[in-house]
Amino acid sequence: MTLTVFGDSTSGNCLKVKWVLDRLEVDYRWTEIDVRSGLTRRPEFLAVNPSGQVPAVVFGDGRTLSQSNAIMTFYGEGTPLVPEDRYERARMFEWLFWEQYSHEPYIAVRRYQLGYLKKSPDELDPKLFERGSAALARMEQGLDGRDWLAGGALSLADIALVAYTRMAGDGGFDLGLYPRVCAWVERVERALGLDASTRCLVPA
Amino acid sequence: MTLTVFGDSTSGNCLKVKWVLDRLEVDYRWTEIDVRSGLTRRPEFLAVNPSGQVPAVVFGDGRTLSQSNAIMTFYGEGTPLVPEDRYERARMFEWLFWEQYSHEPYIAVRRYQLGYLKKSPDELDPKLFERGSAALARMEQGLDGRDWLAGGALSLADIALVAYTRMAGDGGFDLGLYPRVCAWVERVERALGLDASTRCLVPA
Repeated sequence: MTLTVFGDSTSGNCLKVKWVLDRLEVDYRWTEIDVRSGLTRRPEFLAVNPSGQVPAVVFGDGRTLSQSNAIMTFYGEGTPLVPEDRYERARMFEWLFWEQYSHEPYIAVRRYQLGYLKKSPDELDPKLFERGSAALARMEQGLDGRDWLAGGALSLADIALVAYTRMAGDGGFDLGLYPRVCAWVERVERALGLDASTRCLVPA
Repeated sequence: MTLTVFGDSTSGNCLKVKWVLDRLEVDYRWTEIDVRSGLTRRPEFLAVNPSGQVPAVVFGDGRTLSQSNAIMTFYGEGTPLVPEDRYERARMFEWLFWEQYSHEPYIAVRRYQLGYLKKSPDELDPKLFERGSAALARMEQGLDGRDWLAGGALSLADIALVAYTRMAGDGGFDLGLYPRVCAWVERVERALGLDASTRCLVPA
């Protein structure tokens, strides 16, 4: 039995797991589950993840795991995606926890409310834009003098953060204001073999 | 030079770092910083953590680290506080990420708004109570048939989750509705040598 991944292909949280599995050449079966369909609240899915969130995985032996960054860590441990140096590994985790607390709840949520719930910008909580902008500014600073967020190469931190950062334009954020973030998005996309997101046009 | 921890003693995020350091007998100097004083927005502190959040630590060599769960992971790695088994370690991380995304933003925030900002329950976003209650219910289920959240002993997951769960009463949550959570709070408090929180009275 192989690994099953339950994910929504429009969700950055789900895509980051996919990118890690693809990069590490882990064999898996992707089961598409639209978060807006209500399926994540059905008993069949709650048996996989009682929190009702995607992504969630079921291993071949039936055991389950959820939380995108925990799944990435499970597969990333011992690979070049997790820095060997203890301090740099801790910095990677700093970014991973920061992403879930200070980035995703603003940048991903604003994108979702605009693009999927079709709200107008006036209807949105202004905090989403303020804190999302602060998150992008924090990344701009964190990338000062470095190509990758933690360690000297692509790590789980870059993969986790790029997921919604590259879609920030859909949330009404102007990535052009953050040139280091822009260049880093392109760098991570190249490393992952993703199509370049057109949101990010850095002047030459 | 020893480790310096910048923390607010009323913050569960800061206390969890303290508990881990104490348990592992790490030598440190605690610098109290009241999050309501505005000090975390001053340049001196932003040089330590550009995100302006406590806890944050400065190592003897001047390097810095923030995010409570990342600091705990840095010190916990290779100790009995992190399960040796790969899957159980992943479950520990699942709880750590879940804590920052689905527990702290509701239970800690409701406690803060009631206890520190002195808001009345009527002024609060109803989502705080709904999602905080859902988080406690999720823990109640996660503790079914087990004494600890991940692995067979106290781990970083228990320490991270107990921090604000034991204070949930201050946020208007009735822990008596979650008997397994109650018994677990007492278990973790005993393991950490903390005073028993009086919020949690489990019928014999």
